[in-house]
Amino acid sequence: MILSHILPPFMGGIAALMAPIPCLATIVAEDSPIILSGVLLTLVVIYLSSKFGAEAARRLDFPPVLGELVAGVIVGVSALHLVIFPEGGLSASDSVIMTVLQGLNQLTPDALTRIFESQSEVISVLAEIGVIILLFEIGLESDLRQLKEVGIQATVVACVGVAAPFAAGTAGLMLLFHVAAIPAIFAGAALTATSIGITSKVLAELGQLKSKEGQIIVGAAVIDDVLGIIVLAVVASLAKTGEIDVANVIYLIVSATAFLIGAILLGGVFNKSFVAIVDQLKTRGNIVIPAFIFAFFMAFLGNAIHLEAILGAFAAGLVLDETDARNELDELIKPIADLLVPIFFVTVGARADLSVLNPTVPENRAGLLIAVFLMGVAIAGKLVTGWVVFGLPGINRAAIGVGMIPRGEVGLVFAGIGSASGILDKPLEVSIIIMVILTTFLAPPFLRVAFGSSTEPIPEPIAPVKAASE
Amino acid sequence: MILSHILPPFMGGIAALMAPIPCLATIVAEDSPIILSGVLLTLVVIYLSSKFGAEAARRLDFPPVLGELVAGVIVGVSALHLVIFPEGGLSASDSVIMTVLQGLNQLTPDALTRIFESQSEVISVLAEIGVIILLFEIGLESDLRQLKEVGIQATVVACVGVAAPFAAGTAGLMLLFHVAAIPAIFAGAALTATSIGITSKVLAELGQLKSKEGQIIVGAAVIDDVLGIIVLAVVASLAKTGEIDVANVIYLIVSATAFLIGAILLGGVFNKSFVAIVDQLKTRGNIVIPAFIFAFFMAFLGNAIHLEAILGAFAAGLVLDETDARNELDELIKPIADLLVPIFFVTVGARADLSVLNPTVPENRAGLLIAVFLMGVAIAGKLVTGWVVFGLPGINRAAIGVGMIPRGEVGLVFAGIGSASGILDKPLEVSIIIMVILTTFLAPPFLRVAFGSSTEPIPEPIAPVKAASE
Repeated sequence: MILSHILPPFMGGIAALMAPIPCLATIVAEDSPIILSGVLLTLVVIYLSSKFGAEAARRLDFPPVLGELVAGVIVGVSALHLVIFPEGGLSASDSVIMTVLQGLNQLTPDALTRIFESQSEVISVLAEIGVIILLFEIGLESDLRQLKEVGIQATVVACVGVAAPFAAGTAGLMLLFHVAAIPAIFAGAALTATSIGITSKVLAELGQLKSKEGQIIVGAAVIDDVLGIIVLAVVASLAKTGEIDVANVIYLIVSATAFLIGAILLGGVFNKSFVAIVDQLKTRGNIVIPAFIFAFFMAFLGNAIHLEAILGAFAAGLVLDETDARNELDELIKPIADLLVPIFFVTVGARADLSVLNPTVPENRAGLLIAVFLMGVAIAGKLVTGWVVFGLPGINRAAIGVGMIPRGEVGLVFAGIGSASGILDKPLEVSIIIMVILTTFLAPPFLRVAFGSSTEPIPEPIAPVKAASE
Repeated sequence: MILSHILPPFMGGIAALMAPIPCLATIVAEDSPIILSGVLLTLVVIYLSSKFGAEAARRLDFPPVLGELVAGVIVGVSALHLVIFPEGGLSASDSVIMTVLQGLNQLTPDALTRIFESQSEVISVLAEIGVIILLFEIGLESDLRQLKEVGIQATVVACVGVAAPFAAGTAGLMLLFHVAAIPAIFAGAALTATSIGITSKVLAELGQLKSKEGQIIVGAAVIDDVLGIIVLAVVASLAKTGEIDVANVIYLIVSATAFLIGAILLGGVFNKSFVAIVDQLKTRGNIVIPAFIFAFFMAFLGNAIHLEAILGAFAAGLVLDETDARNELDELIKPIADLLVPIFFVTVGARADLSVLNPTVPENRAGLLIAVFLMGVAIAGKLVTGWVVFGLPGINRAAIGVGMIPRGEVGLVFAGIGSASGILDKPLEVSIIIMVILTTFLAPPFLRVAFGSSTEPIPEPIAPVKAASE
């Protein structure tokens, strides 16, 4: 018998199928099969749109990930309202999927709101697990020795890429737009953060992840992350109290550095135990499960010490990349990544509200002007990083600069916190959002053009999966 | 920069890392990174325990899935309280993982309760997706032509397996234990449902899923599911109103039958389009994503028409098994199943409260006596089904009978609804729970013994995955 939900969530299913009988189960238990329905339907929409987007982008000679982002925008808050989240004043009645569930189950408004929130929470966590797996896969594909070779270059690129847009953005806003010092510093800080997720996906799709340029970009993005967390903490602290909390800044610098270096050093020891353990296991999942125990634990650790979960997953991938099991693991992780990573990209697109780009709405116009300025600084401030690389003749400097451009979701954190704390007014907030959306969407084609001059794109491996040959 | 959570969930992470600054984000957004931490830590515990359990079981010559269930019991509500759910009066303070998160983040009791509930919801949905993928994989591994060959046999087995324990259980409770008619009928109905999840996993582990016996068991379990849903609806309706809602009974019979037969018939048409679509796709996930779109949509459909999600997933697997892409798909789905299916089995074990088995607690004793009787009926009532199989000389009748024994979670639905509606008193409810736990735990070794006499266990395939050769 296939009635195998688990108690009590499935009691709702039973209650639901007995239409003439008033509900016997508790209210929360009753929601559960409907939450599952909502999650399944949302996943179907996400997968359909991600495949349409990726295939369309490929046929137009764009990177597939750009297609997934655009597909997310189309099914999200900006257009079809299929995949939306309870934020920015959106409620269950705005969601097409919730309306479908409402029609199927005759739910009360309260129940629908609860189901909408639970379903959104599940999809959000799945998206976060998706980006954790993406960074784990990127860690697996990154060569630690090669990353060490470009370590100094990556550090220089990261530092310049944080300092240049921060300084130019803050100064420009104060001098050209007469913005007060604290909001100007906050907006300048919002220009600093590179989105490793989008850049590294595009690099992988171009077959450039292991090139010298790709390794510098990924390495710089990792260092950038550490710097970004520190900048955000410092700026938010400054904005709130008028002074900098030195102890916290030191804590963040030390913990982030210690975490990455510690993970890499411990990795040398852990490698051998990992292979020894995998060799002992005789049941299904003998490689996948130990690998994910490590990846998820490192992600938890990254989160627990107030860094980021994906920093831990990336470190776990770097460590396991050094083991003998890496080739099997590379193959086994692919279908898992294929299933979970698109949830991340589609939901990023789905959350981006393009209506702030509409110039016919008067209150958007002030933001648009500032946005044009911020866009210029955002692009120029990262482009220059390519030209600070030294001692590597023939390196593709434009590719490195372009690879650092996308700000992704990180800029949205700054906008969100700035807006919630009242530091940023509406035009500044909107212009940061516009800057984030455009850099995210423009960087993939730019990156393709930048690399196109020096290399032929390598077709990405598609299934059927062949056993990796050593 | 790797700060790539998505707005607003990650705002909490930022707020959390700025300890000296009061929270800037909303309350719900603030919880999100902690929910992610909880989910990651719970998954680490689930994977660690599932691997320990599976490997220990294998070394003791038991099926690995039994080890996963026992490991679930150990980490769950009965012992370590690592993986528990907000049910049966359990709160966040009972959960070891929540206590860890509390220690790391200095949460208020209210916030901790919210995080506990959200985290449990996410793990519950992941477990449900796990069993959906398990049934999809079982559908893929089931041979539709062979299943059609045993169709009549399976139908007979299912009908006898529902009727015999139902009649014997109800009569015995009324005559031997002087239970009133309606609770006796309810408890009798609780004896009818076979758990396909556990049986088919054990069959797969024994390499018997495609044997004639295995196909009869799986086929009967599917029909059993349809019968079980009808029996539950009828009995609950009877218990509530004193009469049977004929319209609903007819609706359930028609919709369940139409769903399965319709899916199989449509499958013949859909097969070719599926292969044609897959051939057109050039981006990563070209096989996995279309397959899961189909599986998740069918699961949604099963849920939406008030049947079961896993019935839809099983039908989807049956259909795709007929396509040319099946060999690649079989390989690609394995790591995905390895990652998600253990969540289901460990949480089933984790939710089972073994304290109702303790005979030193006086109120458990009445239940224990009835439980012994119900156990006898539960085993005998399914064992006889092996001997109603006709026209197949040399068939392993004991294996078929034993394969139908595990009641799994379904019996728990009956116990839960019966208790919530006041139909069942405490001893009857407890004895149903005991019956469910013991049949679930005893069937795997029994099944192994039953098959052991006729066949050698085939070692289950473990990674590294080799490319399937046609």
